[in-house]
Amino acid sequence: MLGNFGYCNPTRLYFGDNSLKYLNRELKKYGPNILLTYGGGSIKKNGIYDEILQALEMNDKNVIELPGVMSNPTVHKLYEGCALAKEHDIDLILAVGGGSVCDYAKALSVSARCEEDPWDRYYIRQERPNNEIIPVGCILTMVGTGSEMNGGSVITHPEQKLKIGHVFGDDVMPKFSILNPTYTLTVPRYQMVAGFFDIMSHILEQYLSGEDDNTTDYIAEGLMKSLIHSTRIAAKNPEDYEARSNIMWTATWALNTLLSRGKTTDWEVHMIGQAVGAVTDATHGMTLAAVSLPYYRFILKDGLAKFRRFAVNVWDVDPTGKSDEAVAKAGLKALEGWMKEIGVVMHLRELGVEESMYDAIADGTFLLKGGYRQLSREDVIEILKQSM
Amino acid sequence: MLGNFGYCNPTRLYFGDNSLKYLNRELKKYGPNILLTYGGGSIKKNGIYDEILQALEMNDKNVIELPGVMSNPTVHKLYEGCALAKEHDIDLILAVGGGSVCDYAKALSVSARCEEDPWDRYYIRQERPNNEIIPVGCILTMVGTGSEMNGGSVITHPEQKLKIGHVFGDDVMPKFSILNPTYTLTVPRYQMVAGFFDIMSHILEQYLSGEDDNTTDYIAEGLMKSLIHSTRIAAKNPEDYEARSNIMWTATWALNTLLSRGKTTDWEVHMIGQAVGAVTDATHGMTLAAVSLPYYRFILKDGLAKFRRFAVNVWDVDPTGKSDEAVAKAGLKALEGWMKEIGVVMHLRELGVEESMYDAIADGTFLLKGGYRQLSREDVIEILKQSM
Repeated sequence: MLGNFGYCNPTRLYFGDNSLKYLNRELKKYGPNILLTYGGGSIKKNGIYDEILQALEMNDKNVIELPGVMSNPTVHKLYEGCALAKEHDIDLILAVGGGSVCDYAKALSVSARCEEDPWDRYYIRQERPNNEIIPVGCILTMVGTGSEMNGGSVITHPEQKLKIGHVFGDDVMPKFSILNPTYTLTVPRYQMVAGFFDIMSHILEQYLSGEDDNTTDYIAEGLMKSLIHSTRIAAKNPEDYEARSNIMWTATWALNTLLSRGKTTDWEVHMIGQAVGAVTDATHGMTLAAVSLPYYRFILKDGLAKFRRFAVNVWDVDPTGKSDEAVAKAGLKALEGWMKEIGVVMHLRELGVEESMYDAIADGTFLLKGGYRQLSREDVIEILKQSM
Repeated sequence: MLGNFGYCNPTRLYFGDNSLKYLNRELKKYGPNILLTYGGGSIKKNGIYDEILQALEMNDKNVIELPGVMSNPTVHKLYEGCALAKEHDIDLILAVGGGSVCDYAKALSVSARCEEDPWDRYYIRQERPNNEIIPVGCILTMVGTGSEMNGGSVITHPEQKLKIGHVFGDDVMPKFSILNPTYTLTVPRYQMVAGFFDIMSHILEQYLSGEDDNTTDYIAEGLMKSLIHSTRIAAKNPEDYEARSNIMWTATWALNTLLSRGKTTDWEVHMIGQAVGAVTDATHGMTLAAVSLPYYRFILKDGLAKFRRFAVNVWDVDPTGKSDEAVAKAGLKALEGWMKEIGVVMHLRELGVEESMYDAIADGTFLLKGGYRQLSREDVIEILKQSM
């Protein structure tokens, strides 16, 4: 059954190969001081940086640059941004990059004017902002996290070995996001494929929860079928604009809150994956890929009806003459085939995980209640073993 | 291919059997003068009216009532609303009803402070508002049009025999909409079923256009499968809350602009259906039902690949050993079966159409360019004949 819920997603999107031109329109809505944040500087090689600076200059903006956002943005980088934002009177945070940069921009938007330690308030205690929120705009160059149209923000505390997400409300969602599929064409294959699995995981972790048969599940199935179709094309030919644009659009809808409306969600794969990321600094999507199949096989009997539906509706498994369990297992086998086809990491050891890390990963794994089975700490260690 | 597009849908939704309680939260955002508009007064019988008035009183609002919005809201009713809104200084238009009342509220929101004749400006000349727009909130009591989360507004001019829609931008979309599935349980079966077909038609008219294979099509297929599933349950047992809530949510997503992003759309069925409505005052969804199959059979060969896909992906038609045309036709046969199962009107004569009306209907039918075949006036008359 579709439970009671609220829905509001005010982010304005500009999608397409001409979408950067709308930055001009958006910049007019904000004051003069723009904090421009980005990652390792690849945007300087492919020309995106120059185009953005030109738009900022045309609009007489003061640009305060904050480069060097890492793939798992740290709390120390957040403190650096807060100091910079306090020094200047920032009117808009403009994030250029993938999910990490967008996540970081949102963390900064609620933290810059926060009176207490934002790590404690937002990530440890999961409290709401009670201070002014600086508006955020995103220019996406990598696909996967959906951060361009949601209030999510994951930050890592390296010393505490914690990687924690906070899903903020619609007041923290980006005011606008520019989605140009051509920007994603130059992303290295490893990151591209990791993004593909991140998208699948976002859909799966919302879909594979609850007993109920509702509209949301049907939308999720449509998105998964689209994703499987387009990633197969993109894995063969990463330059295929049509496939990459469909994947970009699917990624947005995979995690812009629609798929969680009125239903329970799981998110345990993200919890384990994030704990792996906190210990190893491995690429997010690959941590999810390495633990997904062992996790789903571990809980398959607890959510048998939904796993069976997944097999039939998403992978076209013919159920005739098969037990529900056999059908459900065939669905996961098909998922495994697709994962190998697109080339994700299938084992934690490839990400640098060693047995000696099990305890730290298990300690960093939040045990949630939305899945088909409530995991124990021992279960997490068992799943880690099976993921090696 | 997914073309370039913008997307923004800021409407805040409250969904569920407890959703009216959020009216209180929303009312606090607006000034004291509330124009309360509704239809024939059924909301006074089922208690919704009293609950709303209580919330308005609790918030010390001045309530200006505007009842009597008809199922095809006329331009004369619009002028009446404009006069009332000018007399009072309205801060919020609160629409309680189905798509007609929501459409009417949006028409009024852009017309009340319009310096010229709004019929000419918005409906005949299809121009944008250049005046202040009064905010709109909706409390939905009937499902189908999607008007609760879009900028669409259809108004009828009885003397000109024209029923014309204008799709306004996101500044005209409702600021909030309250969707309580229990309110829809008392809608008479005829209106309920008409709404079901209206939803299907919204999805189909966006899906059955363009050659391309994009994410939007997969989402549309998911929504159609959900709709078929839930309407079969609701047709047997209209009191089934689960089915009715899924249908309500599907209706919202069928026409809140998502399904048209990056692709062409058809809408010729709506054009013919609206022309029928202008001449007969028949229920909107039933006018669409009566002309859909003849229209789709008329254009089937022009859009064969998509009709084939519709048959296989939505109706599970087995294509083995069949020609594309045979598969496509089997899909429409399955659609016909579902229409008869839920009990829509299959013939225009049941709606009071007579041969003498063909010319007036054809005159009132806008001939659009987005479908698989550009219709001529003669084609429209042929389709009307086949719809009798």
